[in-house]
Amino acid sequence: MQGLRTPRLPVVALVMAADLPRRLFGPDPGRTLAPLARRAHAEAVTDPHDPAARAVLESAEVLVTGWECPRLGPSELRLMPALRAVIHAGGSVKNMVDDAWWQRGLTVSSAATANALPVAEFTVASILLAGKRHELTRQDYRARRSAVNTRESYPDSGNYHRRVGLLGASLIGRRVLELLAAFDLDVVISDPYLSDEEAQLLGVRRLPFDELLRTCDVVSLHAPATPETAGLLDRRRLALMPDGATLINTARGALVDHDALVEEVVSGRLNAVLDTTEPEPLPADSPFFDLPNVVLTPHIAGSVGNEIRRMGDSALAELGRYGRGEPFAHPVAPERLRITA
Amino acid sequence: MQGLRTPRLPVVALVMAADLPRRLFGPDPGRTLAPLARRAHAEAVTDPHDPAARAVLESAEVLVTGWECPRLGPSELRLMPALRAVIHAGGSVKNMVDDAWWQRGLTVSSAATANALPVAEFTVASILLAGKRHELTRQDYRARRSAVNTRESYPDSGNYHRRVGLLGASLIGRRVLELLAAFDLDVVISDPYLSDEEAQLLGVRRLPFDELLRTCDVVSLHAPATPETAGLLDRRRLALMPDGATLINTARGALVDHDALVEEVVSGRLNAVLDTTEPEPLPADSPFFDLPNVVLTPHIAGSVGNEIRRMGDSALAELGRYGRGEPFAHPVAPERLRITA
Repeated sequence: MQGLRTPRLPVVALVMAADLPRRLFGPDPGRTLAPLARRAHAEAVTDPHDPAARAVLESAEVLVTGWECPRLGPSELRLMPALRAVIHAGGSVKNMVDDAWWQRGLTVSSAATANALPVAEFTVASILLAGKRHELTRQDYRARRSAVNTRESYPDSGNYHRRVGLLGASLIGRRVLELLAAFDLDVVISDPYLSDEEAQLLGVRRLPFDELLRTCDVVSLHAPATPETAGLLDRRRLALMPDGATLINTARGALVDHDALVEEVVSGRLNAVLDTTEPEPLPADSPFFDLPNVVLTPHIAGSVGNEIRRMGDSALAELGRYGRGEPFAHPVAPERLRITA
Repeated sequence: MQGLRTPRLPVVALVMAADLPRRLFGPDPGRTLAPLARRAHAEAVTDPHDPAARAVLESAEVLVTGWECPRLGPSELRLMPALRAVIHAGGSVKNMVDDAWWQRGLTVSSAATANALPVAEFTVASILLAGKRHELTRQDYRARRSAVNTRESYPDSGNYHRRVGLLGASLIGRRVLELLAAFDLDVVISDPYLSDEEAQLLGVRRLPFDELLRTCDVVSLHAPATPETAGLLDRRRLALMPDGATLINTARGALVDHDALVEEVVSGRLNAVLDTTEPEPLPADSPFFDLPNVVLTPHIAGSVGNEIRRMGDSALAELGRYGRGEPFAHPVAPERLRITA
């Protein structure tokens, strides 16, 4: 549809958390947006039904949305008769998008690719350090306060030909794969939606998930939270992982049966790197906080700090494309929404 | 010299720690070495002056050395009249090599390239996690036991266009540089022995060390311990680093004035990732063990576990080259020894 449009800069409105425009677009968001818009309302709309917001939304042709954007259903869309496109400056549009968008023929873009990068980077760092028994040797040294004989005590450490398994050929999973190519690791992947042909193009071996779990020293989750993936890492599957293996979760807590995982890490049989949990934050008495074989972080793998700016840059580039009558570089396809994050 | 030799498999002896042959060459070192040697003494010599060792060394044309190999000076060389080459299955030959080697015309090879890989990998992981404020947010979450608002509390986190400074274009420094090219980081380097032309070939900007310290959020040390680098990171230079910056040391403790660093990390002004320290191990009461802004590990960045096998594979490949009359792929040049690790 965009291809038929005469290029003309759009009226732009922002719907997102109040502090977000300057984190996405720098200290003066209005100035940053100005060259890309006929008119830009740089102050964020947080509630579309707010009377002041209504005037802004009425003329908006493009919405740039961000974290804390409310679900925009039919009643919200009615406030935006000029709307043609939504550019989400965030990783996941799932909680915003309504079927009414597609009925209205909106084109939608997201910054999922930009947001995949920091998650993949965090994951690769975690994989490398898990292979080095980084946290275990660190805690050992701290407890012992004398030399740790890694040759005697950690003969199973190291990243030479270690086998790493990825669950999910998502944007993030693929970027992890790409980054891991620089190392001497044996990487395998499991994804029911990945064909053998595509796996070959990616240069990775596909394995059934159970076999991946049985044969990998490090397993990293990159699947979305969907009804199919809820509790995927259940007691039976966690038991398949070899002694001393590490589970890395930067995806969603809902993928893992946390009671079963607690047992496996409390016993010391498995190690875990958890950036996402269920619930999140964890209850104050969760054993995950203090175990020497668990690295627990407060959901920082995705875009934080200056990485929010990367999503902003991605949104600005999409806005530029829209203004020039070009298609989005990162369009959201309705049929993919069910199986992506 | 090797080029003039008629290819013929050599008699090989190992001089290294007693447990090392099977870590380098697998469960049956004799069998692994057999195809590459006319005769291989697969049991390690630990003391060249031991009477049993003398018979082994007398016929050895190639020594494969490893960790805990003693210095081999003129009196040891006299025990090895047939010796023509030394292949070190370790990162650094500095403490073994004697001037007498060069006078005897020995050719020397090391596994420094193989050993550079794990150090570089550990470093890259540490750089990425330092940028994410990984340890700080982790400790924050542990202390708070409720959600950490990273947007409010850690606006300076993230790896988008973060500036990273490397000290030393060593084998390890160069590999770090190569790996960092995959990320959106602004990498600069400082090395008095690196020319502008070479820096250009490496695709990195050279900076004077003081300027690098003043402008980088993360600084990683990859210089050898030499008289010139002793205490290089002194109080004055540490003070140049911006608030909240991270110093990563996987090189040698001797490069850093530890009293000055303790002050900077105890105050919370700087963060540190220390895999090497002076002394090593640290005294039991060192504040580095327990500070929330210090990640202290017991010298694990270099080859551990299966990574020792990588050095073994490197040595086997060199032994194969020797037997075929080819030059070593990783020769040690006497004139470089002074400025390398």
